[in-house]
Amino acid sequence: MEQLWTKDNTVFDLNVLRDDIRRWLREDVGPGDVTTLSVIPRSHRSSGIIHAKASGVVAGLPVAAMVFAEVDSGIVVKALKKDGDPIVRGDVLMEIEGNTSGILMGERLALNILQRLSGIATKTNEFVKALEGMPRPPRVVETRKTTPGLRVLEKYAVRVGGGHNHRFGLFDAVLLKDNHIKAAGGITQAISTARENVPHTMRIEIEVETMEQLREAIAAGADIIMYDNMTREAMAEATRYVREHAPGIWLEASGGVRLDTVRAIAETGVDLVSVGGLTHSVQALDISLDLYDKKAVQR
Amino acid sequence: MEQLWTKDNTVFDLNVLRDDIRRWLREDVGPGDVTTLSVIPRSHRSSGIIHAKASGVVAGLPVAAMVFAEVDSGIVVKALKKDGDPIVRGDVLMEIEGNTSGILMGERLALNILQRLSGIATKTNEFVKALEGMPRPPRVVETRKTTPGLRVLEKYAVRVGGGHNHRFGLFDAVLLKDNHIKAAGGITQAISTARENVPHTMRIEIEVETMEQLREAIAAGADIIMYDNMTREAMAEATRYVREHAPGIWLEASGGVRLDTVRAIAETGVDLVSVGGLTHSVQALDISLDLYDKKAVQR
Amino acid sequence: MEQLWTKDNTVFDLNVLRDDIRRWLREDVGPGDVTTLSVIPRSHRSSGIIHAKASGVVAGLPVAAMVFAEVDSGIVVKALKKDGDPIVRGDVLMEIEGNTSGILMGERLALNILQRLSGIATKTNEFVKALEGMPRPPRVVETRKTTPGLRVLEKYAVRVGGGHNHRFGLFDAVLLKDNHIKAAGGITQAISTARENVPHTMRIEIEVETMEQLREAIAAGADIIMYDNMTREAMAEATRYVREHAPGIWLEASGGVRLDTVRAIAETGVDLVSVGGLTHSVQALDISLDLYDKKAVQR
Amino acid sequence: MEQLWTKDNTVFDLNVLRDDIRRWLREDVGPGDVTTLSVIPRSHRSSGIIHAKASGVVAGLPVAAMVFAEVDSGIVVKALKKDGDPIVRGDVLMEIEGNTSGILMGERLALNILQRLSGIATKTNEFVKALEGMPRPPRVVETRKTTPGLRVLEKYAVRVGGGHNHRFGLFDAVLLKDNHIKAAGGITQAISTARENVPHTMRIEIEVETMEQLREAIAAGADIIMYDNMTREAMAEATRYVREHAPGIWLEASGGVRLDTVRAIAETGVDLVSVGGLTHSVQALDISLDLYDKKAVQR
Amino acid sequence: MEQLWTKDNTVFDLNVLRDDIRRWLREDVGPGDVTTLSVIPRSHRSSGIIHAKASGVVAGLPVAAMVFAEVDSGIVVKALKKDGDPIVRGDVLMEIEGNTSGILMGERLALNILQRLSGIATKTNEFVKALEGMPRPPRVVETRKTTPGLRVLEKYAVRVGGGHNHRFGLFDAVLLKDNHIKAAGGITQAISTARENVPHTMRIEIEVETMEQLREAIAAGADIIMYDNMTREAMAEATRYVREHAPGIWLEASGGVRLDTVRAIAETGVDLVSVGGLTHSVQALDISLDLYDKKAVQR
Amino acid sequence: MEQLWTKDNTVFDLNVLRDDIRRWLREDVGPGDVTTLSVIPRSHRSSGIIHAKASGVVAGLPVAAMVFAEVDSGIVVKALKKDGDPIVRGDVLMEIEGNTSGILMGERLALNILQRLSGIATKTNEFVKALEGMPRPPRVVETRKTTPGLRVLEKYAVRVGGGHNHRFGLFDAVLLKDNHIKAAGGITQAISTARENVPHTMRIEIEVETMEQLREAIAAGADIIMYDNMTREAMAEATRYVREHAPGIWLEASGGVRLDTVRAIAETGVDLVSVGGLTHSVQALDISLDLYDKKAVQR
Repeated sequence: MEQLWTKDNTVFDLNVLRDDIRRWLREDVGPGDVTTLSVIPRSHRSSGIIHAKASGVVAGLPVAAMVFAEVDSGIVVKALKKDGDPIVRGDVLMEIEGNTSGILMGERLALNILQRLSGIATKTNEFVKALEGMPRPPRVVETRKTTPGLRVLEKYAVRVGGGHNHRFGLFDAVLLKDNHIKAAGGITQAISTARENVPHTMRIEIEVETMEQLREAIAAGADIIMYDNMTREAMAEATRYVREHAPGIWLEASGGVRLDTVRAIAETGVDLVSVGGLTHSVQALDISLDLYDKKAVQR
Repeated sequence: MEQLWTKDNTVFDLNVLRDDIRRWLREDVGPGDVTTLSVIPRSHRSSGIIHAKASGVVAGLPVAAMVFAEVDSGIVVKALKKDGDPIVRGDVLMEIEGNTSGILMGERLALNILQRLSGIATKTNEFVKALEGMPRPPRVVETRKTTPGLRVLEKYAVRVGGGHNHRFGLFDAVLLKDNHIKAAGGITQAISTARENVPHTMRIEIEVETMEQLREAIAAGADIIMYDNMTREAMAEATRYVREHAPGIWLEASGGVRLDTVRAIAETGVDLVSVGGLTHSVQALDISLDLYDKKAVQR
Repeated sequence: MEQLWTKDNTVFDLNVLRDDIRRWLREDVGPGDVTTLSVIPRSHRSSGIIHAKASGVVAGLPVAAMVFAEVDSGIVVKALKKDGDPIVRGDVLMEIEGNTSGILMGERLALNILQRLSGIATKTNEFVKALEGMPRPPRVVETRKTTPGLRVLEKYAVRVGGGHNHRFGLFDAVLLKDNHIKAAGGITQAISTARENVPHTMRIEIEVETMEQLREAIAAGADIIMYDNMTREAMAEATRYVREHAPGIWLEASGGVRLDTVRAIAETGVDLVSVGGLTHSVQALDISLDLYDKKAVQR
Repeated sequence: MEQLWTKDNTVFDLNVLRDDIRRWLREDVGPGDVTTLSVIPRSHRSSGIIHAKASGVVAGLPVAAMVFAEVDSGIVVKALKKDGDPIVRGDVLMEIEGNTSGILMGERLALNILQRLSGIATKTNEFVKALEGMPRPPRVVETRKTTPGLRVLEKYAVRVGGGHNHRFGLFDAVLLKDNHIKAAGGITQAISTARENVPHTMRIEIEVETMEQLREAIAAGADIIMYDNMTREAMAEATRYVREHAPGIWLEASGGVRLDTVRAIAETGVDLVSVGGLTHSVQALDISLDLYDKKAVQR
Repeated sequence: MEQLWTKDNTVFDLNVLRDDIRRWLREDVGPGDVTTLSVIPRSHRSSGIIHAKASGVVAGLPVAAMVFAEVDSGIVVKALKKDGDPIVRGDVLMEIEGNTSGILMGERLALNILQRLSGIATKTNEFVKALEGMPRPPRVVETRKTTPGLRVLEKYAVRVGGGHNHRFGLFDAVLLKDNHIKAAGGITQAISTARENVPHTMRIEIEVETMEQLREAIAAGADIIMYDNMTREAMAEATRYVREHAPGIWLEASGGVRLDTVRAIAETGVDLVSVGGLTHSVQALDISLDLYDKKAVQR
Repeated sequence: MEQLWTKDNTVFDLNVLRDDIRRWLREDVGPGDVTTLSVIPRSHRSSGIIHAKASGVVAGLPVAAMVFAEVDSGIVVKALKKDGDPIVRGDVLMEIEGNTSGILMGERLALNILQRLSGIATKTNEFVKALEGMPRPPRVVETRKTTPGLRVLEKYAVRVGGGHNHRFGLFDAVLLKDNHIKAAGGITQAISTARENVPHTMRIEIEVETMEQLREAIAAGADIIMYDNMTREAMAEATRYVREHAPGIWLEASGGVRLDTVRAIAETGVDLVSVGGLTHSVQALDISLDLYDKKAVQR
């Protein structure tokens, strides 16, 4: 569980991440990289760079470094950017030097991770920037629509891009949705049963669609209200009501939040906007690895 | 390793997939779904549907079914579509019935998988359709730019969408790229060394950028030629040369293949076009789960 | 992740628990039970009972059942009590019938689990009973002083005994202790930094020792206050202050809570008392397995 | 499997133990320690001590050291006591220095292990001391009533406290109990079948309740006799008989051995007393970690 | 840990064995059997037989059955022989029916296991037969020279062939070899230190090369003596000495035991002969799987 | 996945191999080596050699080194031979120095691996030597008849002995055997279906028994032909036909290839001979570890 110091308040459990990286390497390398093994002399060394071919916010550099370290501990990488930095086409992100076979075996996995995490950070950052200038902009948060197996990394990329995180999963917060409420027998019953049964350390969030549901949720003691696909007008009205009658409650706008709508939604006065697309539909940021011709030396 | 019969020539190693699903469920559910556990009676049962909110090609239904089976073997699902079917908004993909808690615990993972795989199948299918009507359309294949940990599923989704697969990873085919060729000391040397060292069952593919390289590769005995970011004109010329001088060779166009360029690239006469974006930049297909109000019965 | 329905709001991830049980069986059985294998005919069957040799609250019966199912799926158990039932010496908890070798291989692990969990449930129940008759008795909760590897089961046993749970671990709630406060630069700084960085779904609990710290914590927006080893008088005074000035805050008494002091501590008006000894110092409840002479039949 | 040199004849398989520690850390830390991550600067360092708050025999210091090494390899610990040392309230057991976040993430697990193992060593040592002064005191040994998953550590703690170990599990010795004897068709049959089938390297131990059974066991060639809940008078008589007629046999007293009865039981002349409570009902030894105010420096 | 009843006193931990089989299948099948998947219709079913192409003693049939069950639980096998049966060329060992793809995917692993285990059982049986007719033939036992990862199966095959087992590994018996004795400071010291430290349930075996060492070992209390590469004359003399002076001791002949020497060695009067070659140099027994032409039906 | 540089074009995935070694060590050492732990002082150090007791080709030295490194990273080994070297009785292969307990715990596993891999390399080398002097000797390749769990090591040993490798498993090449052909509906159908479905990077190999089948396979576009148990005369005739009509095809002789027949089979003109016995029936090469008397020093 050694710690990888990256962006401000972020840490990975390196033992878990290392196990993931090994599994992912096995997926690609299997019993051996037949191309590299068959043609590249064992002692051949190279140096090169990882560089951007598009603009955005970089994320995942320490993870890429770990990939190469897992392949061959003798590979040396030097990061020239750090996670969260804005990058433009042509920027060198990382220098790399070491055994050529090792570099080539790790290349694809390192780039696949970098491209996806940077894509998420870039997209998140676009949403955050769309709210710039507001006196008190809401938090931009992701949802649970993450790629299976990559949640911890994808949530990290959201933070790198300037967003905040929602709950990690089903275990660390109560979020009462329509189906829970129906099965529990109503909003009041759902909130009071949850309160009785869950640790006192958890807040209770509940989804509402109408003012009537909102009032019942507040009366029942909800800590956080999620507006579920409500119109901007309805959200604005509901928010005014909450600020007046239950000022301690947090408000989250959810559903249909896009880059062209986020500002208007934010201006309804909510505390958070959650955006599934931050993680479920990502454009990979184009990033490449090039080995130098000159510096490829035969030792 | 029980087998899951899906689209024609497809099979998953269900033991491996089951382990993946358990890991992914643990990622989301952790030590327990506090919402469901705190408010939904253990005996509460529901039924509902998984339905499309957008149009495309569906992929991943058998995997979604496995997710629910892992959560609770008493949940019964019935697929109304099969992988590869075209779907439109409003189509019901699957009916589901069982313990409400179980359904809600598996919902997010099942949808995350369905949405991603259907997104890949849909995108692949758009490329395949773009080649329809050609007398001998090239294969549309993915690259190794897949999501770490999901390669087997993502390659499956490509096939579901009408594409073919490239090599699985570094272990099952030789693909000599620029860096390998430099390290090996040239095209001729790279091909002959590879041939000497790898099993006789493997073909040797090599990347070329110029006609000169192409001629050297053919003379050295390459089985497959990949055009690396060559212009359409150059590809057309190269293809004519190959068809005349080395008719057994397969030709692959790679780099910058987009939906608006794929037809023109295909018409240079290549046998394959490889498209990284099939898997690295995917728009999730919108798919939802709804529980019925009426049929939610308390047994 | 099939679900094991036990006491009210409780569920285990059976896939994880099954892996644990297999690991624990391997610890005991290793490459084989040489005694059983060498002397007991493979076809020998027995029936018997698991019975209490002391009084208390039983916990762990479904887990014991899983142990035998893992050893041999043909072993049939029938629970005559359910978790949470009070039991006295002589009570039969479970009947068992099946292959003699299998029963004997699973016996020790099943009993070790039953004895420990019942010991925890029994001890918890003594604390809960000590608060009976209070108009609004505080929750009795455990701490993180659980046995490594057994936390989910031990927390379950606390609930079976009538207690509630504190946070599961370090990941699902903020609890600012002395060392965090010092490193963060004070109470106000710690609370505001935490609030800025953690998901909005989490409450923030903070440990205080003095009225001055209490006032600062309230002003900074703490959600929960833990009294750290304060005298009863100090807790009573602090509680009165909180009830008047910050009625939404939860109050937890911690440190030195024993069976002979818990009532007096509870009467200071706190909402929770946390008791490390519920899990770190447990007297196993004496429970045995006996095979019947008569019913041992050779099929 | 690197080796951890601790008390005389003791070694752990460090690879296995490291895997256990990682699993236990994951149980507590999950996807991240939200408190530490949100409020403590990454570069903050602290130093402190682990010290005793009660008297007893310490056990587990090298394991605690491994816990911190797993969290952050930069944390430096210095043991001031070694396993087996008697300690009193106020003794410093270990000094610790390093990254504050890392220390706080490992603290609870390290203490949970130390407290439990020291509790076992302390209790074992009380039994061993109760036999001091006897010309040939019997071995004090534990039983298989250990905590699931912790057997190797708990048996180690017994040795640290001055005890000896019984068999590790079901695989490394034959112990014929009542149920085996019944199923095998009697004492003579059980012993001879076992002898025929098990490796020649194993001794055969058998449980007896009466003199008649004892005589049959000796005649059948038992190597070790366990007195199962016999009175002290019966054990004394049996022991005299064995010493005269079968001097090579080892004798074990089992059942109801308590601190106030162990001396009298030992004086019946047995070679071993086995005590289930050494591991199944343990009072944790109170041990704490404190960080220094002064030495907490911001680098 | 469900149990697999095979030869008399034998049981496998099926959970562990199942994990092994899955790992071995993954080794062979990897991400998929491209031949079977590409050419065999999913619904194609076949039936066939596993039959002997050489004579010997069969071992491993239940393991082969498990292999097919892991590949596809719908495959039905029917054993016509049982482990330990003598077989001759042409004997049908097992009938098999089910999905053709599944049968072909499991075929190689099932045969690899059957051929190796039957090879070991056959070789062991030749040694056992070579001792037939002796009034009290010594046990034929294997050594620790087994294939990494297959010890439990290979030791099982030795028993199937009529042999007995030596200790399982380093953990379940004391065997003092030359290097231990030197490091301990001599035979007497080694035996007494071992006796003091190991559980009372273990016998102590020691290797000797001379009569002088033998006498010292007996005086020090050894339970078992291993003759290490002694001549037959020396073994005979030593045995006479032991039978007279220490009749309870077991004697093991080790080193250079071959099929042509085992009888003469046995006649020196030892209790066991250990043969490394039973497991380290095995001739696979030729066994094949054939699918029927006629019965291959398309359902 | 750090890389282990051994013979020319060979590399192991060290992460996977390390996991294997740990599993194999646990198989042998279990919860502890009771002999070593009980009699050898923790600080005792020794030095010694691993030496050959028979002649052959050595293979596995780097793996043996890894075994000792896993047991105790302080053990220092120095290889005096390298994999592929011819060795004779008396040759020192490796010097070893370090903690005596560690050396003794790793000894058996290291030797078991060395003996088996050297046995395979030696046998392979005998086949390769039998073809020396031929103008264009065919490749000697192994089959899939390897030991479960050891395939990567055994295939490596074949290369060390001068052989080449066949496909790794079912996933990296198409090999159409009799059963596939029948199920597919004939040779032509099998080849064309396979070609349509598998990646373009794979060659298609097919088994034939007659000239008629051979002609059909060639017409259908097979890349490689395997002669299945054909007579030498038939193979010679077939080869002449292929060389004339389909010069690009590779030819493999399979079935009944023994050391006394391999030369004659090779002279039929095939490109490969495959020999199952290279891995399924191996004579371990006798290799031992001896500790020095003099250099055993007590530090």
